[in-house]
Amino acid sequence: MTLRHFLTTQDWSRAELDGLLEQAAAFKRSRAGRQLEGKAIALLFFNPSMRTRTSFELGAHQLGGKAIVLAPGKDAWPIEFEVGTVMDGETEEHIAEVARVLSRYVDLIAVRAFPKFQDWSVDREDRVIHAFARHATVPVINMETITHPCQELAHIQALREHLGADLTGRKYVLTWTYHPKPLNTAVANSALLIATRFGMDVTLLCPDEDYLLDPRYMDFARQNVAESGGRLTVSHDIESAYRGADVVYAKSWGALPYFGRWDAERPVREASKHFIVDEAKMALTNNGLFSHCLPLRRNVKATDAVMDSPACIAIDEAENRLHVQKAIMATLAGQG
Amino acid sequence: MTLRHFLTTQDWSRAELDGLLEQAAAFKRSRAGRQLEGKAIALLFFNPSMRTRTSFELGAHQLGGKAIVLAPGKDAWPIEFEVGTVMDGETEEHIAEVARVLSRYVDLIAVRAFPKFQDWSVDREDRVIHAFARHATVPVINMETITHPCQELAHIQALREHLGADLTGRKYVLTWTYHPKPLNTAVANSALLIATRFGMDVTLLCPDEDYLLDPRYMDFARQNVAESGGRLTVSHDIESAYRGADVVYAKSWGALPYFGRWDAERPVREASKHFIVDEAKMALTNNGLFSHCLPLRRNVKATDAVMDSPACIAIDEAENRLHVQKAIMATLAGQG
Amino acid sequence: MTLRHFLTTQDWSRAELDGLLEQAAAFKRSRAGRQLEGKAIALLFFNPSMRTRTSFELGAHQLGGKAIVLAPGKDAWPIEFEVGTVMDGETEEHIAEVARVLSRYVDLIAVRAFPKFQDWSVDREDRVIHAFARHATVPVINMETITHPCQELAHIQALREHLGADLTGRKYVLTWTYHPKPLNTAVANSALLIATRFGMDVTLLCPDEDYLLDPRYMDFARQNVAESGGRLTVSHDIESAYRGADVVYAKSWGALPYFGRWDAERPVREASKHFIVDEAKMALTNNGLFSHCLPLRRNVKATDAVMDSPACIAIDEAENRLHVQKAIMATLAGQG
Repeated sequence: MTLRHFLTTQDWSRAELDGLLEQAAAFKRSRAGRQLEGKAIALLFFNPSMRTRTSFELGAHQLGGKAIVLAPGKDAWPIEFEVGTVMDGETEEHIAEVARVLSRYVDLIAVRAFPKFQDWSVDREDRVIHAFARHATVPVINMETITHPCQELAHIQALREHLGADLTGRKYVLTWTYHPKPLNTAVANSALLIATRFGMDVTLLCPDEDYLLDPRYMDFARQNVAESGGRLTVSHDIESAYRGADVVYAKSWGALPYFGRWDAERPVREASKHFIVDEAKMALTNNGLFSHCLPLRRNVKATDAVMDSPACIAIDEAENRLHVQKAIMATLAGQG
Repeated sequence: MTLRHFLTTQDWSRAELDGLLEQAAAFKRSRAGRQLEGKAIALLFFNPSMRTRTSFELGAHQLGGKAIVLAPGKDAWPIEFEVGTVMDGETEEHIAEVARVLSRYVDLIAVRAFPKFQDWSVDREDRVIHAFARHATVPVINMETITHPCQELAHIQALREHLGADLTGRKYVLTWTYHPKPLNTAVANSALLIATRFGMDVTLLCPDEDYLLDPRYMDFARQNVAESGGRLTVSHDIESAYRGADVVYAKSWGALPYFGRWDAERPVREASKHFIVDEAKMALTNNGLFSHCLPLRRNVKATDAVMDSPACIAIDEAENRLHVQKAIMATLAGQG
Repeated sequence: MTLRHFLTTQDWSRAELDGLLEQAAAFKRSRAGRQLEGKAIALLFFNPSMRTRTSFELGAHQLGGKAIVLAPGKDAWPIEFEVGTVMDGETEEHIAEVARVLSRYVDLIAVRAFPKFQDWSVDREDRVIHAFARHATVPVINMETITHPCQELAHIQALREHLGADLTGRKYVLTWTYHPKPLNTAVANSALLIATRFGMDVTLLCPDEDYLLDPRYMDFARQNVAESGGRLTVSHDIESAYRGADVVYAKSWGALPYFGRWDAERPVREASKHFIVDEAKMALTNNGLFSHCLPLRRNVKATDAVMDSPACIAIDEAENRLHVQKAIMATLAGQG
């Protein structure tokens, strides 16, 4: 039997995703479980985290399991991911050993590894998580790399709670927003994947063509709408994009053509601060919901008024991280 | 019902504090409990900790609960506490979201947030913990900000163990000591509050008027002695202050008039190294007990001889952190 | 009754070590235990760790106990280890208080404290762990200082799994290898101690006399072979050392005569890169096993081919850390 990982929702069938969401809903009703009794998960953070750390560590505990939190390069040794390298630089240990040793100790390995933001052609290979999946002998979970599949499920769970189980045909706007730093495209990629997967009428709203997402994810999205009966539109016009929307999902990201040359991108980004989600824009929607993956800079990505309005379901979505991740851990740990 | 926090002992009646101390004594006799069964606490450390970390994490575990340790700005995102700010600086996330999301995950939130030591008029507002209390929907516990109420209870528990339950009228000296850095007034404020609360005859001993504590705490102390039948004296004379003391509690702190201008304070501080607690001073006491909140620089704040003498109850006080914090957690978590 | 620590295997009789290894083997067959029920261990890391952190934290959990992970100087206060010092420098807290307070909270204290690499005459006193053992009132476990006794037991367990319980007379090569930095001698000292203790025919292979280990460990090794019937040889000839070996154990370390003057050692070290463990060298052995304590720099200390060969038992050895440490914790905690 092939070992099942949770690296991207694209590897999981719609029925399987529905199954995870049902289990998540059950965990939301009743938190305790024994699915990880006597089992353990290693949480490897190459980047900081608040929600992910808390929800995974607590989720494992609530299922009777034990989470071990590691920060390689900080409280653990820096890791080499390239194959065949003469390791005479900074890295002290190869992923082959790290993954195999951890697989002896724990039953699941979860990894957060953001891009290095220097060369997108390298970052888009998502080497860290794939190296873990290749070398580990236990299931590997993506805690955000260049996609963020746990966030996807939490997002869909929150949408379903507010809009009903069938999201087909809902007008969904994924809007780019300004942020003083060029951020990861992970949550944008993920929103595109999952919204198209669930058959929504998706508009990707961004300042210009430079802010389109990587072709891999644009292609997945087109393939998803073909299968799900959804729709995918790219727009650079704020007003028409917001008009009639059922859902506005905001995220900032750096423009891929400027990847690693962020000084060149800055003027473009700075000229697009008006993409902030505010009450005027939300007033154009169909009494639409607003969400964001958090952390969110208030009055930069969205105004206080939007964040504090009843339309904002970002806190529900954040809570759901706990429930969906428990469903993922329980499912993967039950493969044995 | 209003949510009850543990931000300062001044918010709790003397009967309630006695109740916490009784429960702490019971936990000292028998460590295990189920009061946090199925519950969790987030421990947020904006500053380092050894005793507090260990005693809270272990205490939650001994009550059947789970502690999640977070260090915002280090392994989690830096947090914004001001309301209405355009968050285009260093902070990535607003307390409104942090507190509300954590409240979905856990049942208690404990916060350590020291002053920034630049402007006392800002630091004295104690914004971080109050922001958590305002935005969280679960009880918030003060793990040291500009007061240290957990230390207060641990201190009183240790005094009662050695002097008996009734501390009324005991001669209590809170002495400033030298330290190479200007430290937080938190434990000094707290000692003043709790010693006056329990009716002791309290002397605040410090080099000069510049080392008086903030008027808020001086006023609370005067109000406390009026109610408890205690006494409050300020002294700059070491010998008369120590003479006949039942308890000597030492702490170093920076002089508030020099707050943020520490170079100007240095000569004053450096001229007062003789405030060190040594055997000669302790010999003036009524066979007095010595304590300190720890960490303590030996031979700077107190000599080896004092620290290693039977009069020193600092280790008992440190142990009691575990017991009183369990009482606090159990009480707050039982509000539901 | 004297409190028993686990600071070095030399303090434990051969029968006691055999007992620990038997218990470790039992834990390998069945992970769950209740030996630490209601008990706790503090894990103090003055240096980074991946395997040690994970295996101790998880091991304590599997025995029903709770591990508290502390990093003094990072998330806890920097500690003073000298006696009688006027603590007006960087350290905020004395080991006397740290050890005594932790002893009130937990039942076991484990410490990782590498040398400072400035003055071997200081580092060889191993002050940190000995200060903990002197001041703590609970058992102290060495998680690697200038020896690494937990690694020793994991190593022997792995050798026994592959070669049978009786290791007497097995040809064992401890080979120095190149590494771009001068590393700790701890694992080399430990390999020398444990291999001679178990009666093997031990060869210490290193570039020249400067790479001999500290006389304390050379003397222990000679004393061990006298008692165990083993043999100790020093060699600088790669080919004859490898020929017929049953076990090749690799480790890099800095040459003690150059301690703290590492620039002077560099040319010698750089000239000895050919000590890398490769297939050609392994072909000289008696179908020998290869191991290393990890982390290992691939293609610097050993080639990919060796690491990925069936002869490599480094992953088994790493797994065994979990089992032997559980045996150590269970044994020490059971003293009460």
